[in-house]
Amino acid sequence: MNTFGQWFRVTTFGESHGPAVGAVVDGVPPGLPLSEADIQPMLDRRRPGGPLASPRKEPDTVEILSGVFKGRTTGTPVALLIRNRDVRSGDYDALREVFRPGHADYTYLQKYGLRDHRGGGRSSGRETAARVAAGAVAAKFLMTHGIGVTGRVVEVHGERDAAAMEEAVRSAAAAGDSVGGIVEVTAASVPTGLGSPVFGKLDAAIAAAMMGIGAVKGVEIGEGFAAARLFGSENNDPMDATGFLSNHAGGVLGGISTGQEIRVRLAVKPTPSIAMPQQTVDLRGDEVEVSIRGRHDPCIAFRLVPVAEAMLALVLADALLEQRALGGKRI
Amino acid sequence: MNTFGQWFRVTTFGESHGPAVGAVVDGVPPGLPLSEADIQPMLDRRRPGGPLASPRKEPDTVEILSGVFKGRTTGTPVALLIRNRDVRSGDYDALREVFRPGHADYTYLQKYGLRDHRGGGRSSGRETAARVAAGAVAAKFLMTHGIGVTGRVVEVHGERDAAAMEEAVRSAAAAGDSVGGIVEVTAASVPTGLGSPVFGKLDAAIAAAMMGIGAVKGVEIGEGFAAARLFGSENNDPMDATGFLSNHAGGVLGGISTGQEIRVRLAVKPTPSIAMPQQTVDLRGDEVEVSIRGRHDPCIAFRLVPVAEAMLALVLADALLEQRALGGKRI
Amino acid sequence: MNTFGQWFRVTTFGESHGPAVGAVVDGVPPGLPLSEADIQPMLDRRRPGGPLASPRKEPDTVEILSGVFKGRTTGTPVALLIRNRDVRSGDYDALREVFRPGHADYTYLQKYGLRDHRGGGRSSGRETAARVAAGAVAAKFLMTHGIGVTGRVVEVHGERDAAAMEEAVRSAAAAGDSVGGIVEVTAASVPTGLGSPVFGKLDAAIAAAMMGIGAVKGVEIGEGFAAARLFGSENNDPMDATGFLSNHAGGVLGGISTGQEIRVRLAVKPTPSIAMPQQTVDLRGDEVEVSIRGRHDPCIAFRLVPVAEAMLALVLADALLEQRALGGKRI
Amino acid sequence: MNTFGQWFRVTTFGESHGPAVGAVVDGVPPGLPLSEADIQPMLDRRRPGGPLASPRKEPDTVEILSGVFKGRTTGTPVALLIRNRDVRSGDYDALREVFRPGHADYTYLQKYGLRDHRGGGRSSGRETAARVAAGAVAAKFLMTHGIGVTGRVVEVHGERDAAAMEEAVRSAAAAGDSVGGIVEVTAASVPTGLGSPVFGKLDAAIAAAMMGIGAVKGVEIGEGFAAARLFGSENNDPMDATGFLSNHAGGVLGGISTGQEIRVRLAVKPTPSIAMPQQTVDLRGDEVEVSIRGRHDPCIAFRLVPVAEAMLALVLADALLEQRALGGKRI
Repeated sequence: MNTFGQWFRVTTFGESHGPAVGAVVDGVPPGLPLSEADIQPMLDRRRPGGPLASPRKEPDTVEILSGVFKGRTTGTPVALLIRNRDVRSGDYDALREVFRPGHADYTYLQKYGLRDHRGGGRSSGRETAARVAAGAVAAKFLMTHGIGVTGRVVEVHGERDAAAMEEAVRSAAAAGDSVGGIVEVTAASVPTGLGSPVFGKLDAAIAAAMMGIGAVKGVEIGEGFAAARLFGSENNDPMDATGFLSNHAGGVLGGISTGQEIRVRLAVKPTPSIAMPQQTVDLRGDEVEVSIRGRHDPCIAFRLVPVAEAMLALVLADALLEQRALGGKRI
Repeated sequence: MNTFGQWFRVTTFGESHGPAVGAVVDGVPPGLPLSEADIQPMLDRRRPGGPLASPRKEPDTVEILSGVFKGRTTGTPVALLIRNRDVRSGDYDALREVFRPGHADYTYLQKYGLRDHRGGGRSSGRETAARVAAGAVAAKFLMTHGIGVTGRVVEVHGERDAAAMEEAVRSAAAAGDSVGGIVEVTAASVPTGLGSPVFGKLDAAIAAAMMGIGAVKGVEIGEGFAAARLFGSENNDPMDATGFLSNHAGGVLGGISTGQEIRVRLAVKPTPSIAMPQQTVDLRGDEVEVSIRGRHDPCIAFRLVPVAEAMLALVLADALLEQRALGGKRI
Repeated sequence: MNTFGQWFRVTTFGESHGPAVGAVVDGVPPGLPLSEADIQPMLDRRRPGGPLASPRKEPDTVEILSGVFKGRTTGTPVALLIRNRDVRSGDYDALREVFRPGHADYTYLQKYGLRDHRGGGRSSGRETAARVAAGAVAAKFLMTHGIGVTGRVVEVHGERDAAAMEEAVRSAAAAGDSVGGIVEVTAASVPTGLGSPVFGKLDAAIAAAMMGIGAVKGVEIGEGFAAARLFGSENNDPMDATGFLSNHAGGVLGGISTGQEIRVRLAVKPTPSIAMPQQTVDLRGDEVEVSIRGRHDPCIAFRLVPVAEAMLALVLADALLEQRALGGKRI
Repeated sequence: MNTFGQWFRVTTFGESHGPAVGAVVDGVPPGLPLSEADIQPMLDRRRPGGPLASPRKEPDTVEILSGVFKGRTTGTPVALLIRNRDVRSGDYDALREVFRPGHADYTYLQKYGLRDHRGGGRSSGRETAARVAAGAVAAKFLMTHGIGVTGRVVEVHGERDAAAMEEAVRSAAAAGDSVGGIVEVTAASVPTGLGSPVFGKLDAAIAAAMMGIGAVKGVEIGEGFAAARLFGSENNDPMDATGFLSNHAGGVLGGISTGQEIRVRLAVKPTPSIAMPQQTVDLRGDEVEVSIRGRHDPCIAFRLVPVAEAMLALVLADALLEQRALGGKRI
């Protein structure tokens, strides 16, 4: 399935080696001011840069193909187009015969009968460009309701201090290795009532959206795994006449938003592609040692921040539309 | 939405105060041997019992209404019916005017304009009976492919030793408090190739299924949050001619099953309903102190084990059908 | 797929030879007065009776299993149960080896590898009982908006006069043959704006719903096939200050309701099961002559009237919910 | 909803006044040879030309943006882009204040609060370009299974003879009026077993697809409305050892394809836009007389032929994928 969401529905397309990637966003209400300028910044953030990331240059320029008239959405599907550039598949050719440890090569071959070695095809990071673009549209919509989404890296290789995080990345890169991290995404000023019980729970949707980001191996909301070690008397959020007095729940209770800040954390595994030699097998089953050089992030967590923001925006936009459409409607 | 899954589709119905709960399972392939005896044991496991749980007696008897002929499924929808008994809503009446901390009361009122105090209606644990029944059908189907799903509580209030776990529960109950825990669910002998990239990833589906279980605040796969603190050289799973040499990935890579054991952990928050006095407000906004007595589990984690198994079975059945239907089909 | 509708979603289950048939209706807004008394009459109309129909006695009694509290819907799924009785599969055993002309026997065997001779299994008329029950719930909902749905047979074997229709049926039955007919279903007081362009058009939904009724071979709206023979100047519906001056469109224009009476006609083929000898083959491919005796309607059109009403009610309820939820919502 | 199909899923986007229209086709199996040359001819047929049609020049050039690698589909979504040209909205400005009889102007305003007078926006014929492009991909896929889809106009204003058809169109145009017609679409060499009972019936899907084409007011399969006037002994299709001896059913029985030619007919209403004066009202409710000049087809039926072929191809591709995926799969 290449479609995400029930109300704010996103269908993505495109592979890294093809002409373009893009998305069709179906369900954007009419009247929303929207232009490429609302989307481009989030795409630019996704592009690697700075001393901590790998030097892949991927200028992504988005074009809106439909759904906007005189600067405002018409309520019809908004199609976004991002032409592919800088396709240097040569970087990957030496690897076409082996299964890179930690990558989807092996599973892909098993499922599809083709290894799709060139840049990962549809499973590569290029596809996330489409999701981030769609997320930017969702974020614009959320802003009209005063809802803001923000993400940041809160931990790298166990370190929480900024300088220690940088050092952890640098020393790993120097050793030809990589490190993992934790990304925290929050949404402020969320109205109560988003999400619906049983199978439309907001936290379930958030979990799926985040775990679906490549390299994510865990998702928690509010106290998360720490709640498993608290007493009920510690974890419950009491109320007084002004509202809730704490937010251990992380903004979601019973699958529905409480009106408090939504707080989500993602566990990002260390980059699989490392220069350090690793043991694996090739397509014939012969054991080989592989060392993956080229342009790889020593810590993917930083690059995932805009992706996580985009996914949270998409989930909240979806839930907000559901609430506007169905919330509390009695005969 | 009251429907779960794309291929092995489950629609549940029923509230705790109504005549019955149940499920319609659409997509079960024809020819599967199936009877009530395949479902009843999992339902019985869901029923509380033993010294650690609350004494609610809820005998659930399942009846198969359709989809089976001469002991085998016909490929048509399988409808399951569980009549409600032992509805003692009187236990809850004293609470109808207040928002119980940690429960969905407040969010429900905001969303639907009704507090639905009686046993939680559709958000209560009774609805999970329907899901467990459907999960048992999925588990039966998985067995024909040699796939087994197992769950257990691995931690309670930070304790991993069985005796320490029991003591933690008892002392909390004695204090009128509650504790949280961690449930681990595994699936063995899973074929490679389950799940599809982008928006049909197996780990995303698992995350949604687990986070959607009430009281779950975190989900991780394989090393999970621990992976965020490992080096790439430590977390990658090398391969030799016999296959993978480790399983930090927890059986899922690139959103697709690797063929190794799938390993999932859920963080279960402590039971919100405790006898210890808590500060909250009533429907008029006046501050009150509430003490919730009655039949409540001091640690919900144990009761969630069959629910988590059921949900993993449903996700795997769904992915297995997708793989059987679409996997590797070339022109 | 055993689910119908996007907003007023109906999932049916059950076969003629199983314990029960039924439906889960998901999406009924809360607060609608509903009881078995709202559904039973439509089911009773579906049961054959009177001099023109076949003497199968199928008392269908519906039970509401969920979704109703103190006489009003709660907004949660409404499950309907109809226990099967009077299963006289003996009537069909002589036919188990042959393909009955005009029936789905041959196609079923090709698709599923099983002929499912006993009463047609899921393809038989028994399944429509579930749909009619769901349609009755939809009709109740429509009534709260002042919308009424009515159907009747307008033609039998080319005859439009009531006495001539009866005679056509009788003489066909006497000859061991059958006749076809045309059913017209209308909906009055429909608001404007139901249906949405491109792939959610109201007339497309109506067409699918009606063509999906067994024995229906054609569907038309308004002038229908007669419009193909009119001039634009004749077929257009002019307007004055009071509104439309005619209704050739049949209440739908551009896929959206105009506010005028919706007028649909279905072409019902003659009953395939006739006593008159017919040429066919058996499972081994040998040519045989078959004469189908037993309890069969000489003209199915009469029996389809409540089914057609139910399907139109379901389509309109679906569109009405969409309009209430999304219609005209601007930022 | 802007998505069509379950297995061969098409999401379209684009308005006549925007930069482009297009479609994302999700579900095309991998390995299918595909290039723009497979799609362009069908688009060209859609473009009006010849003495019978209106002189709108709309050169549509399609570009494949994704889903194809080295000339074959990869199994990932195929995105198709058609840039808009020749937007002469000036032709329509004189009409912006009135409701054109027979058009969706009035219903649109009621539903969306905007009349969208410029070329009809999303409801105009331009959107069908996207559907025809997607249909061409479906047709290419069907060809690999030996299935061919063909359409033609069989009747215009009641005339079946070619010369009489031409004369009917010409004299109507000369009088400033328009005529309707009937389009017949057939599919040959269809395998048995396409479509599934209850809510996935092939004839229901065909009916929805065809009735969803603008200007279509009726759909029939096989004998269609003529079957309503036949005896069962006349309408049934007998079988001998070689197979069916006739095809009154039109290739579909019990909602499943029989293997015989699928035969569908659409009733196309006469073009609403005519030069002949018509009575209507303007946005203020004042009665006006309107005469619509410009570039309009005197008979839309001809232009609809490739659209009807495209829709039948999409329905069959969807059913074929379902059959390949699920047909007959027993445990």
